[in-house]
Amino acid sequence: MEEIKVFCPASVANVSCGFDVLGFCLDGIGDEMIIRKSKQKGIQIIKIDGHQLTSNPKKNVAGIAINSLLNQYQSEFGFEIEITKRIKPGSGIGSSAASSAGAVFAANKILGDPASKDDLINFAMDGEKFVSGKAIPDNVSPLIYGGFTLTRSINPIDVIKLPVPDELVAVIIHPQIEIKTIHSREVLKENVSMELATKQWANLAGMISGLYENNYDLISKCLVDEIVEPHRSSLIPEFYNLKNKAIEAGALGCGISGSGPSVFALTKGSEVANRVAYEMKKVFTPHNIEIQCYISKINPNGVKIISSK
Amino acid sequence: MEEIKVFCPASVANVSCGFDVLGFCLDGIGDEMIIRKSKQKGIQIIKIDGHQLTSNPKKNVAGIAINSLLNQYQSEFGFEIEITKRIKPGSGIGSSAASSAGAVFAANKILGDPASKDDLINFAMDGEKFVSGKAIPDNVSPLIYGGFTLTRSINPIDVIKLPVPDELVAVIIHPQIEIKTIHSREVLKENVSMELATKQWANLAGMISGLYENNYDLISKCLVDEIVEPHRSSLIPEFYNLKNKAIEAGALGCGISGSGPSVFALTKGSEVANRVAYEMKKVFTPHNIEIQCYISKINPNGVKIISSK
Repeated sequence: MEEIKVFCPASVANVSCGFDVLGFCLDGIGDEMIIRKSKQKGIQIIKIDGHQLTSNPKKNVAGIAINSLLNQYQSEFGFEIEITKRIKPGSGIGSSAASSAGAVFAANKILGDPASKDDLINFAMDGEKFVSGKAIPDNVSPLIYGGFTLTRSINPIDVIKLPVPDELVAVIIHPQIEIKTIHSREVLKENVSMELATKQWANLAGMISGLYENNYDLISKCLVDEIVEPHRSSLIPEFYNLKNKAIEAGALGCGISGSGPSVFALTKGSEVANRVAYEMKKVFTPHNIEIQCYISKINPNGVKIISSK
Repeated sequence: MEEIKVFCPASVANVSCGFDVLGFCLDGIGDEMIIRKSKQKGIQIIKIDGHQLTSNPKKNVAGIAINSLLNQYQSEFGFEIEITKRIKPGSGIGSSAASSAGAVFAANKILGDPASKDDLINFAMDGEKFVSGKAIPDNVSPLIYGGFTLTRSINPIDVIKLPVPDELVAVIIHPQIEIKTIHSREVLKENVSMELATKQWANLAGMISGLYENNYDLISKCLVDEIVEPHRSSLIPEFYNLKNKAIEAGALGCGISGSGPSVFALTKGSEVANRVAYEMKKVFTPHNIEIQCYISKINPNGVKIISSK
């Protein structure tokens, strides 16, 4: 294989009760990336379309992640990267994870697929670490495994791909303001009360059961965030208004996507999703904030090969 | 129905990663209780065999729990209670839960079964509150629902009965020293670091997945307690020695049962369970501490009717 083109989907991490451990992959929203062999050794980012990003491979997450891969698996050739960036950086739907996971997935294919999924997560995390200061693969795991994932452990990597009820649909509202993950972590407390922690893990445990049981009512009851949302919501304009409108319109739950500012809602079925999206968008009508809205099934594949030669 | 005799099994709460929310029911170890209608209104405890307990129905958990039931469902008649107490109070395997859950289960049958399972848990919790100072139904829920339960919420009660892999076997070692739940709560911290809390809920989420997937390896990896065990283990003689021996002998995991001093191990199959029990018992050979050891499948039924007339 000389060249590979991949689709690198957006993703939602945390998912209310699952701070730093749950994540799921979206469909139809994502970057495209071409990676090809080059005679010149090392990594070159030769083209970035869409959003502005550095093309310095030592500072671009795609470059950093591939570099980690190459530290493990030496190569006789170099890599050229072309990125069509559709996920805005700092949007809260896994922009850097799309770059890092997509890059290592694709480069690994060109190398002949030597690395395991868990290795790929580790390499991608080196990229993530660079942008967010902390390496949590809650966006990377669903891109590498596909679907809805539980990242049970980071060291060593242990990811569980969870079952997804057929009719589960995600609505994403992305108000076009930027929050860097690194700042979003700063508002969090270092400690949490045992009482709230216990409620949180009870809800996360219920959420896992709800996914296995196809129990939308249980999923709905468990989409609660007692710990992070109360702090981070202040960074997101109209958060509680959005959430109330989503729930009133029939959403199973609504929360902050990753570290925000995107907000996600989960619904049973597309019809409810359309209604929820409509009501959530309306919240921004009086404001001078541009928004993007996506409606998406849970993407079972993660990073996907578009073409290769 | 004039009289009912029930088996009130012992149970294990917390289960390492599931502090205050997970619990499972044991088989073959438990109290027996007879409850019969009496002309004299109110509650009378006319006989207690086995371990010493107060027969004052206002101070005995069985009496308190039935009293709560009767506050909701008035009765023309009274109740006589006979208890054969086989689970030692303060053992950490749900002695008071056996009394309170057994009592309300049985009295509800005599009343014609008006109360729901969740109501029964609420009534039993009034008994639990009296003995342990805090009403957490992590031992009561598995007695009322049977099997392995997740108590997702207390207010309102929301209990999920989890699937149990066929070959799962519990080993219980009960060193005959008494720790009151109320004291055992005192050693806990009010706050916990986000880092440890995140690890704990990742493991709990993995444990739930492991139960659904029949994945013993995953269950084993998740039987970790980052939060409570480091504090409570100091109250239990030889805890880490017991744990190491259990793991060496093939246990999936080992932890404190409820608030101790009983220690549980989970194994795949009875053969390993026997080996684990043997090695754990041996730890106490040089000590002057009497121990009880039980080996039990997970009991799917909870409180069970032995006879009625």
